[in-house]
Amino acid sequence: MKRVALIGTGLVGGSVGLALRRSGVHVRAFDRDAERLGRAAEIGAIDEAAESIAAAVEGAEVVLVAVPVGQIPDAVAAALDAGAPAVTDVGSVKAPVVAAVAAARPDDAARFIGGHPMAGSEQDGLEGADPDLFVGATWVLTPTSYTDGNAFASVRSFVGALGAEVLAVEPAHHDALVALVSHVPQLAATTLMDVAATHGEEHATLLRLAAGGFRDMTRIAAGHPGIWPDICVANRDAIVAALDDYLSALGRVRDLVQAADRDALLDLLERARNARRRLPVGMPTGEPLVELRVPVVDRPGVIAEVATLAGAMGINIFDFETAHSVEGGGGVLVLVVPERDAAAFEAALSERGYHHASTPLP
Amino acid sequence: MKRVALIGTGLVGGSVGLALRRSGVHVRAFDRDAERLGRAAEIGAIDEAAESIAAAVEGAEVVLVAVPVGQIPDAVAAALDAGAPAVTDVGSVKAPVVAAVAAARPDDAARFIGGHPMAGSEQDGLEGADPDLFVGATWVLTPTSYTDGNAFASVRSFVGALGAEVLAVEPAHHDALVALVSHVPQLAATTLMDVAATHGEEHATLLRLAAGGFRDMTRIAAGHPGIWPDICVANRDAIVAALDDYLSALGRVRDLVQAADRDALLDLLERARNARRRLPVGMPTGEPLVELRVPVVDRPGVIAEVATLAGAMGINIFDFETAHSVEGGGGVLVLVVPERDAAAFEAALSERGYHHASTPLP
Repeated sequence: MKRVALIGTGLVGGSVGLALRRSGVHVRAFDRDAERLGRAAEIGAIDEAAESIAAAVEGAEVVLVAVPVGQIPDAVAAALDAGAPAVTDVGSVKAPVVAAVAAARPDDAARFIGGHPMAGSEQDGLEGADPDLFVGATWVLTPTSYTDGNAFASVRSFVGALGAEVLAVEPAHHDALVALVSHVPQLAATTLMDVAATHGEEHATLLRLAAGGFRDMTRIAAGHPGIWPDICVANRDAIVAALDDYLSALGRVRDLVQAADRDALLDLLERARNARRRLPVGMPTGEPLVELRVPVVDRPGVIAEVATLAGAMGINIFDFETAHSVEGGGGVLVLVVPERDAAAFEAALSERGYHHASTPLP
Repeated sequence: MKRVALIGTGLVGGSVGLALRRSGVHVRAFDRDAERLGRAAEIGAIDEAAESIAAAVEGAEVVLVAVPVGQIPDAVAAALDAGAPAVTDVGSVKAPVVAAVAAARPDDAARFIGGHPMAGSEQDGLEGADPDLFVGATWVLTPTSYTDGNAFASVRSFVGALGAEVLAVEPAHHDALVALVSHVPQLAATTLMDVAATHGEEHATLLRLAAGGFRDMTRIAAGHPGIWPDICVANRDAIVAALDDYLSALGRVRDLVQAADRDALLDLLERARNARRRLPVGMPTGEPLVELRVPVVDRPGVIAEVATLAGAMGINIFDFETAHSVEGGGGVLVLVVPERDAAAFEAALSERGYHHASTPLP
C-alpha cells in the first residue's frame, strides 16, 4: 500500500494519518474545515492537503471517510464517483450507511466496505491524534453480498497496517452488537451522571463521595456529546431494543434488592465478575497463525459469507486475499487466522460446504 | 497519635497499617483469620499481632474496625468493652451500623464514630494494600447527637494522618448518598456486564467489540462480589429508592431515543458532560486554610450539628478540636476549613445562631 486518501481529519483521520506516514505510506487528505486540514498538515498527519474529495482520492488505493455519521454517504459517493478502487468509513452505525451508499450508487457500492474501529477515546478532535490509537484494537468491517473481493482485500490490508485486528460482521448485526457494548453504555453512564448531578445540586456532599468506581463508570459521559444524537437516531431501533433489555434486567435486580435475596444477588455478581475478567484484551503478539485457502465459486456474497462466518465466531482475520478474481468464474480466498481458532473455523467451513486447505505459517 | 489498633487486616486494614507505620505510629492488630494476620505482619503492615480484640485495643488511642459490614457491631462492642477511647469503622453502610452499636452499648456508643473511606479499588485483599490508598480521598465520618468530642477529634486526626479528607455527614444521609454514587453504579455496571455476556454467549463477536468505554464502565463489576449482598441488604431502602430514580431516568432516555429527539438528547449529554467534568478530584495541596473557633454550649449533638453542617455544604474539615470539654458546661470547637469555603460556612453558622471567630492560617 503506497497511497491513501483521508476524507476528514479529526481524531480518527489524524490518528490514521500519523500511523500510515510512520509506515511510509503517502497520505493526501481533504476536510471541509480548512483550518483543521491545515493543522493536520502541521502536526504531520498528512503529506498533502487537497481542495476536494476528488482531488484527494486521485491515485489512492484506499480512501478512508472519517466524517460524522450523517455526512458519510455523500462523502463516500463522491469518492466512488472519483474512481476510488476501495472506500471505507469509520461510522459508529453501519446498516443505514451501507444502505444509503447502495441506494445512492448501486453500480459502485461493491467498492465500499463499511468499517468501524472499536478504539475508545475521550478526546474530541485532532489534538488527541495518536498513531498507536488502533494498535491491538478491533476494527469491524461489514462486507455484503455485493462486496468486491479486491476492495475488501485492500481495506483489510489498510486496517492491518494500522495494527488493528479485523473482524467481519454483517452491517445489521454490527449495529445490534454496538448498541449493547457502546451506545447503551454511553446512555447508561450519561444518565447515571445526570441523576447524581441532579441530586448533587441539593447535596454538595454527594459528588465528594464519588470514588474510583463512579469515576470509571461515568468517564465516557465526559466525551464529546455532539456525535451521540446522530448515532442515537441512526441506530434507534437497535438501541431501544438493547435499552429495553437493560431496563428489564436492572428492574429484576431492583426486585432482588427489595427482596433482600442475597443468594441471587451473589450469583449475578459472580457471573458478571467472571464475564468481566474474561473480556478479551487484544491478541497476544507473536501468536501462531494458519493460512486457509478456500476455493470459491463465482456467487454473490461469498466473500461476506466466509468473512462474517469468522466474525460471528469472534475470529480475527489477520490477512485476506483473493488469489484469483472471485468475480470471473471462481477463485481462491486466502485467509490468515489464529492457529487456536483454525480447527473450529475449518469445521464451520466444511459444514457450509467449503473445501479448504490449511498451512501453518512460520 | 502514637498507638492505633486494627481489627481486620484486609485491603483497608493493611493499607492503613502501612500508612501509619510509615509515619511512626505503632500498630497492633487482630484478625479472626490468623493466616491473614500473619501475612499482614510479613508485609510490614503491623507491628504486633494480638490474640483478641481486647489485647489489640489495649493502650491504643484509636481503634479501626475494618471487617465486613455484618461483623462490625460485635467487633466495635468488643473494642468499647475493652475501654477503647475512640473507635471507628469502614463499613459501606452507616445508619444500621451506628444504630446497632447504640443498641448494643448505649452507655459507650459516644466513643464510636462511624466511618467510610471513599477510596475505590478492585483488589480483594491484603495483596493490594497500599500506604497511599487514602491520600487525597474523601473519608466520611458520621457523628451523632451523642458523639463524644474527644473521640471525634481523635478519629478525625487518625483519618488526617492517612492523608484523607474528612467530611462529616449524618449516618442516614450518608447511606442515601452512597446508594447513588456507589451502590447503584455497582449494580448498574454488574447488570450491564451480565446482559452483554448473556448476548455474548450467542455472539462470540460481541465482546470483541467492547472498546475502552465499555471497559471503564464495567471495571467495578470485576471486583470482589462477596461484600455486595451484605451491602445491598444493609442499605436496601436507600438502594431501591436510588435504583427507582435511575430506572425512571433511563426510561425517559429510552423514550427520547425512540422519539428521535436529538435536541433533548443533546441537552442531556451536555448536562452530564459538564457535571462529569466538574467532578471534584481532591483538594489542591497547599490550599489556604482558615481556623474557626466556635463557642458552644453543653447540648447534645452540637458537635454533630457543626460538623455535618460543613459536610452538607461539601466542606472538608481539615482539623477538628474541642478546646475545652464540650461536655462540662460548654467550650470551644476549633475547626480548620479551606479559605474558599470559610465565608459560606461562617454565614451558615451565624444563621444557626453560632458565634465564631476566624483566623487565616499561615
